[in-house]
Amino acid sequence: MPISEFGIIRRFFLEAGLYRPDVALGIGDDAAILTVPPGQEIVTATVPLTANGDHALPPNPSFLGTWSITSGLAQLAAYGASPVWLTLSLTLPEANEEWLGCFSTGLRTTTVEYEIQLVGGDTTRGPFNLILFALGLVPVGKAIGPTGARPGDLIYLTGNPENPLSGRLPRPSVTPPPHRDTAMPTPRIAEGIALRGLATACSTILGDDPAAALAAIMNANGAGATIYGKPPAAQPDLDPPSDANQNTPTPSTGPGKFELCFALPPNKQKELEGRFKHLASRCTCIGSIVDE
Amino acid sequence: MPISEFGIIRRFFLEAGLYRPDVALGIGDDAAILTVPPGQEIVTATVPLTANGDHALPPNPSFLGTWSITSGLAQLAAYGASPVWLTLSLTLPEANEEWLGCFSTGLRTTTVEYEIQLVGGDTTRGPFNLILFALGLVPVGKAIGPTGARPGDLIYLTGNPENPLSGRLPRPSVTPPPHRDTAMPTPRIAEGIALRGLATACSTILGDDPAAALAAIMNANGAGATIYGKPPAAQPDLDPPSDANQNTPTPSTGPGKFELCFALPPNKQKELEGRFKHLASRCTCIGSIVDE
Repeated sequence: MPISEFGIIRRFFLEAGLYRPDVALGIGDDAAILTVPPGQEIVTATVPLTANGDHALPPNPSFLGTWSITSGLAQLAAYGASPVWLTLSLTLPEANEEWLGCFSTGLRTTTVEYEIQLVGGDTTRGPFNLILFALGLVPVGKAIGPTGARPGDLIYLTGNPENPLSGRLPRPSVTPPPHRDTAMPTPRIAEGIALRGLATACSTILGDDPAAALAAIMNANGAGATIYGKPPAAQPDLDPPSDANQNTPTPSTGPGKFELCFALPPNKQKELEGRFKHLASRCTCIGSIVDE
Repeated sequence: MPISEFGIIRRFFLEAGLYRPDVALGIGDDAAILTVPPGQEIVTATVPLTANGDHALPPNPSFLGTWSITSGLAQLAAYGASPVWLTLSLTLPEANEEWLGCFSTGLRTTTVEYEIQLVGGDTTRGPFNLILFALGLVPVGKAIGPTGARPGDLIYLTGNPENPLSGRLPRPSVTPPPHRDTAMPTPRIAEGIALRGLATACSTILGDDPAAALAAIMNANGAGATIYGKPPAAQPDLDPPSDANQNTPTPSTGPGKFELCFALPPNKQKELEGRFKHLASRCTCIGSIVDE
C-alpha cells in the first residue's frame, strides 16, 4: 500500500483525545507507559467489533468511533471500574481520509467526554476489523463482575422501570457496526461505581438482552433465578448462550442504554436506594437468585 | 456458526498457561482484574499479526502460537519491562479443532516458559486476524523505549558480533505468519532489564532489520547516526519507514533473535560490560548518535 496512507492514519490517531497525568508515554510510540495509583487494581476488557470481514469500510464512522469506546466502557462498568485508558487495533481495507476524519472525531469527542485517553493501537490493512482494549481502575478487592451472587440475592436492572424479562426477548446476534444514526447508548459507569461493595455480581446488558446478562450471572455462579410477574413455566430460557459472540455489543435499538443487571443481598436495599438517589438512572428489582 | 465451535475455542483458551498470583480474575470472564505492585508502572504493546485477511487458517499453528507471544515480549523488552500478562483477540474463518489444539499448545508452552499469563481475549468469526496485547511491568521512571538518545551516545546491538549495518539490509515487509518451522526467535527480556537506568534509548529489531530499529531511535530523537566500518556515502538509508506495518514482526530468517538496538552514554560502557557478563548474549558497539 502507498506509504502515505498510514502516515495519515497516524496523524488522525495522534490527534485523538485528551492527555491524562497517569500516562507517562502515550500513542505514537511502540508501547504506552501507564501509572496505577496505590490501592487500585486494573480491570481490562477486550471488545471485538468485527464487521464480518467486509472489504468495505462500514458506514457512519463517527458513530462507530463513539460506539466502539462506549461498548468497552459498558464492559468495565459491570466491574465497578472507572475507565482510564484505551487501545484500538484497526484493520482497514483502505485508508479513506473522510472516513478516518469522522471516525477519529467520534473517538476524540468520546474520550474527552469520559476523561479517558487513547494510549496505543495499531493500524494494518485487510478486511475491516476493530478490536478495542479498555482499561479501568478499581480499589483493590472492590471489582464486581458476574461471579459472586448467592441464592436469596435480589436481581436488579438499572434504568428501566418495566420488567423486560416478563416477556421473551431475542438473543443478541453478531451484528455489523451500525449503519445509521441511532441514539448513542450510555455506559452505566457511575452506577457500576455506586455498586462497589454492595452488589454481589454484575453483568452488562448488551444488545438490549437482559436475559443474556442475567444468564451470565447465573452461569458464573451455578445458580438459577426466579423472575417476578409471570408463571415459572413461561420464564424465558435463561441458559447461558454459548455463541462466542455473546459479548459482542450490538447497537441498541431500544432505550439506548448499556444497562446493568446485578445481584444484591436483601439487607442492602436501603443502602442501594441511598446511593442511587444521587444518580440519573433508576433501578428495579425484577426477581431473585435461587439454587439451580 | 454452530454454537459448539466456539465452546471448543473457549475450552482451548481456558486451558492455556499458568496462574500468576497478581491475576485476581483471569480468562473466562468478561474482563480480567490485575494487580500492579507498588513502585511499578505498566508497559503495554499492541502487536497485530494479521495474515492479510485470508479466509483460510494459516499453517503451522503451534509455531504461530509461540511466535505471537514472543513478538509481544520482544516489543516490551525495548522498554526494559518484565512481561506479565497477555490478551489475545483471534478472528478465525473456521473453528478447526486440530488447528486450535496446536495453536493453544504453542501458547501454553510459551506462557509457561516466560512465566506470563493469558488473562483475556476474544474469538470472533471472520478472515484470519490475530491481535496480541502484551503487558509488562517496570519500576517507575525506568522504562527505556526509543526516546532519550543524545548526540555522542554510542549505538549498540545485542547478540551479534558482526556489524550488520555495514551492508544495506532489506526493509521489513508485511509478511503473513510463518508457513514453516524455523528457529523460534528469543525476545531479549533479560537484556532489556539489564539496560534499565543505563541505555538512553532502545528499540527492538524485528524482521532482521537493525536499520529500522536504529531509524526508530533516530526519528524519536531527531538525531542522526554514524555507523563504523564504512564510508558515510555508503551508509544504509536510515529514514524511518512510514509503512503502517513497520512494527509488524516478521519471522526471523537470520540468527533467529529479536535483538535490541540501544544508545548508551560513553561513560557507561564499563557498567554495561559488567551487567552483560552475566547474560547469555553479547552486545557490540556499531556507531554513535550525531546531530541530525
